[in-house]
Amino acid sequence: MPEFRKDPVTGRWVIISSQRAKRPQAGLGHSSAQPEVCPFCAGNERETPPEVLAYRNDKSRPDRPGWSLRVVPNKYPALVAQSGEADCTDGFYEARAGVGVHEVVIESPEHVISTGSLDERQLTAVLRAYRDRMLRLGSDKRWRYILVYKNEGREAGATLEHVHSQVMALPHVPKEVADEIDGARRYYQQSSRCLYCTIVENERSERTRLVSESERFIVLCPYAPRFPFETWILPKTHEAVFERGSDDEYAEFSRCLRDTLKRLHRGLEKLPFNYVIHSAPVSGNTRRYYHWHMEIMPKLSQAAGFEWGSGSFINPIAPEEAARLLRGLASSV
Amino acid sequence: MPEFRKDPVTGRWVIISSQRAKRPQAGLGHSSAQPEVCPFCAGNERETPPEVLAYRNDKSRPDRPGWSLRVVPNKYPALVAQSGEADCTDGFYEARAGVGVHEVVIESPEHVISTGSLDERQLTAVLRAYRDRMLRLGSDKRWRYILVYKNEGREAGATLEHVHSQVMALPHVPKEVADEIDGARRYYQQSSRCLYCTIVENERSERTRLVSESERFIVLCPYAPRFPFETWILPKTHEAVFERGSDDEYAEFSRCLRDTLKRLHRGLEKLPFNYVIHSAPVSGNTRRYYHWHMEIMPKLSQAAGFEWGSGSFINPIAPEEAARLLRGLASSV
Repeated sequence: MPEFRKDPVTGRWVIISSQRAKRPQAGLGHSSAQPEVCPFCAGNERETPPEVLAYRNDKSRPDRPGWSLRVVPNKYPALVAQSGEADCTDGFYEARAGVGVHEVVIESPEHVISTGSLDERQLTAVLRAYRDRMLRLGSDKRWRYILVYKNEGREAGATLEHVHSQVMALPHVPKEVADEIDGARRYYQQSSRCLYCTIVENERSERTRLVSESERFIVLCPYAPRFPFETWILPKTHEAVFERGSDDEYAEFSRCLRDTLKRLHRGLEKLPFNYVIHSAPVSGNTRRYYHWHMEIMPKLSQAAGFEWGSGSFINPIAPEEAARLLRGLASSV
Repeated sequence: MPEFRKDPVTGRWVIISSQRAKRPQAGLGHSSAQPEVCPFCAGNERETPPEVLAYRNDKSRPDRPGWSLRVVPNKYPALVAQSGEADCTDGFYEARAGVGVHEVVIESPEHVISTGSLDERQLTAVLRAYRDRMLRLGSDKRWRYILVYKNEGREAGATLEHVHSQVMALPHVPKEVADEIDGARRYYQQSSRCLYCTIVENERSERTRLVSESERFIVLCPYAPRFPFETWILPKTHEAVFERGSDDEYAEFSRCLRDTLKRLHRGLEKLPFNYVIHSAPVSGNTRRYYHWHMEIMPKLSQAAGFEWGSGSFINPIAPEEAARLLRGLASSV
């Protein structure tokens, strides 16, 4: 049974989940071998738990071929939805039952290994699947936050290469998002403005960290990036929540994302990366000042002793330099 | 010129340092090739900046062979001691001149690639070199914190394989240490006790997360570890500061560290790891409640989308399991 445990000094929560160690390519031996049968390819549906969502043609049956996108429970989940155990204090320490939901979005029936290779329609479907699962999971009162993220490439923590991303429902707002909310709230209290809206306005006029713009979205390298070529995509007008977009908006966002990934692919020899969607928590009144966005984090180097020991980051590429390079690499989408 | 930059939302500081991108194995292309001439081997002293400390035999001259340990400025420093620039606000954003010191401790004149292979005497010399540099750098009023860390193995961020570690003098207390200090202060205010002393006492009586003990030190897997096999070494009695130890204490600590690394090497196929020494800040009155310690973090998997997106960690190995395995792997030092 997984467990949330709290570090008694820093208050940082971690998930202890022995189930995860059972993954075939769990990384403890640094194996990069792929399984002989890819569990995510069409025809191998029996290799995954039964689907919870699929976009499939009308005649096809669940957990059979005929789909263009599937969402399945993670076979090796970090959290489980049902728990026999209540929260507990472990003597001096504090722990909670590791309840949550951990799903995998299989983004193509073909063995595609790069998100940037998905066509616009397919990538739009991926974003709509995020929306569908965020709305569904968000309606369960147990979950306070739905986190969407992607690991692509072994250096970015992916164990399977077939394009996929992950959706997690959590019983609390994760620290990184809580920190963003705190900062945005403080700014709003002082200025009655959304901090992210101010950033967008600032970057649109400054232009040195701007990568591209569409009607509704801006792509930029943030002022204080943790990683070389870290790139964010934000809606240009105030919107707290990813999952309330229109189909039109997801189509436009998918063009921005695809264009950005293509620029990064052209600029960098290899592109292992993570992305994460930060949307407002399911409930609570953060919507006046929080502003959803996607953070794309290429993994060109490892976080190391300095980063883990200091909580800070050394980034050898200034965002102005990264943005200048990416601007010059306009993709022919 | 390097720069500290503050993320306007979370307040997180990062170091933007283009000098670092010039490292021959800077990792942007994921090269693991070592240079033909190892700059850290005896005889190649001209490949490094002039030494700032060396333990060498009486007849040898600076920056010539005859040393058993050298400390040199990092050739590709993340921070520089002299700055022409003052702190600045970059319009809407906040930045500071990237001043600091970044040094490399070359831990052996031979091309040894594993810290665990150093003999006790040599490892004691490494610890004494940390002390010597911490005291020297700490006497410069510009620096508020001296951070010692090690990256061993490419997966742990090392670009050169020859055994070495790094010392950084920083103009502020890094976030990770500040968070620890805050937690320790809160506990002290409530209970008039050192939180780390309480943890040590708790783990000594509980024993499930205990790896080993010596007269003065305890080796344990922490209750809420970020990483599989994360292991901490702490003094058993209250001591805020690493750099005020006696030669005897460093010798005993080196035996504990060596024993721990050997256990980890026996238990794991590969052992890329980071370690960091968290000692009290140079000044300020944290010494009643802060307690120095070393955190050893094996890098068996990558931090990925979940970790960067949530600020939390998924750890597939419970510390009780890790400690049980490590206890069974007593090293014959």
